[in-house]
Amino acid sequence: MQLYGFFRSSAAYRVRIALALKGLDADQVSVHLGKGHQYGEAFAAVSPQNLVPVLEDEGRRLYQSLAIIEYLEETHPRPALLPNDPFERARVRSLALIVACEIHPLNNPRVLNYLTGKLGVSEDQKLEWYHHWVKMGFIALERRLMSERQTGRFCHGDAPGLADCALVPQVANANRFKVDLSDFPTIRRINEACLALDAFQRAAPQNQPDAE
Amino acid sequence: MQLYGFFRSSAAYRVRIALALKGLDADQVSVHLGKGHQYGEAFAAVSPQNLVPVLEDEGRRLYQSLAIIEYLEETHPRPALLPNDPFERARVRSLALIVACEIHPLNNPRVLNYLTGKLGVSEDQKLEWYHHWVKMGFIALERRLMSERQTGRFCHGDAPGLADCALVPQVANANRFKVDLSDFPTIRRINEACLALDAFQRAAPQNQPDAE
Repeated sequence: MQLYGFFRSSAAYRVRIALALKGLDADQVSVHLGKGHQYGEAFAAVSPQNLVPVLEDEGRRLYQSLAIIEYLEETHPRPALLPNDPFERARVRSLALIVACEIHPLNNPRVLNYLTGKLGVSEDQKLEWYHHWVKMGFIALERRLMSERQTGRFCHGDAPGLADCALVPQVANANRFKVDLSDFPTIRRINEACLALDAFQRAAPQNQPDAE
Repeated sequence: MQLYGFFRSSAAYRVRIALALKGLDADQVSVHLGKGHQYGEAFAAVSPQNLVPVLEDEGRRLYQSLAIIEYLEETHPRPALLPNDPFERARVRSLALIVACEIHPLNNPRVLNYLTGKLGVSEDQKLEWYHHWVKMGFIALERRLMSERQTGRFCHGDAPGLADCALVPQVANANRFKVDLSDFPTIRRINEACLALDAFQRAAPQNQPDAE
């Protein structure tokens, strides 16, 4: 398997965690997002959307981090990243989708560039935007994680799963942009429990070959 | 089953299509997004995120449209909205996620309100933003749908599925905001094939009890 990613891409980070949790190895191909390499010819031939991550497996290409993780779950079921019961599976997926649909899309570089470029928004306004959407999403996540009985040491029970694959990279991003997380004790607790695991460490941005 | 939604919510529309394709009935509870009822006390008790859709089934609540559709797929497998093969399933999911993660989150009302309110963006700039993200996503979708051999009468083969549940509401939104879709012939063709089906008609915004 080959994973096209970038150390700082939180969507690639999600997939790295899933691979590590399942004990799978993928050769990493670094696509430097800071230098705009996602728009270069070489990568455009790989990804019609100029987005990482892309996973290649048996000569076929897979796009979109959550679809890639579901694929890994179906092709390498153990250890499971989703529970067995359909309702519980929906719970885990919905927690991951809060990150993937409600937070991350608003704060990725191309959106921030549109704000500061085309819309002439100031650096302060850009940071306020960034913090706003992280907090909106984290308020919802915290409420659910705090109140739902299925929450355990991790987002769902006492083993890490799909929701944790999404949460930890989002917390890393929030920390990078200095979002105050004091109102989110359950998120912080779960994040710490994850980071204590070897798989999450191996997947962490600072431990990638292309880390700066 | 009860579906909390709103006729114009494209995420609720996705779930309505999936229910209709599977021949399932849900009582609809309308949450008027235009009047801000998603922030009212009654709905806040239902949804920690003040977002529709929410599906209630056997007294349990499910959030996030794609997680809800996966739940319906697992609990009511026929007709299938996902193919059998893991790689093909990943393809369909990734097409749906282009809509759900790359287009829709940037163009929903709370984001547009932030632009015109807090950032003082003009109506024209807001529309340009809207069109920009639809086009970015549709360029990627069109490229894939046009070039990948699995595309058939619908996004994947000759039966409607999960990706169509996401695509059709996004096209409806694009039309509502007068996005020029002439560069996206495959998307338009698939959208028309879907709208020719009774299930998509029954799910359409204008055919809901709360339509205005």
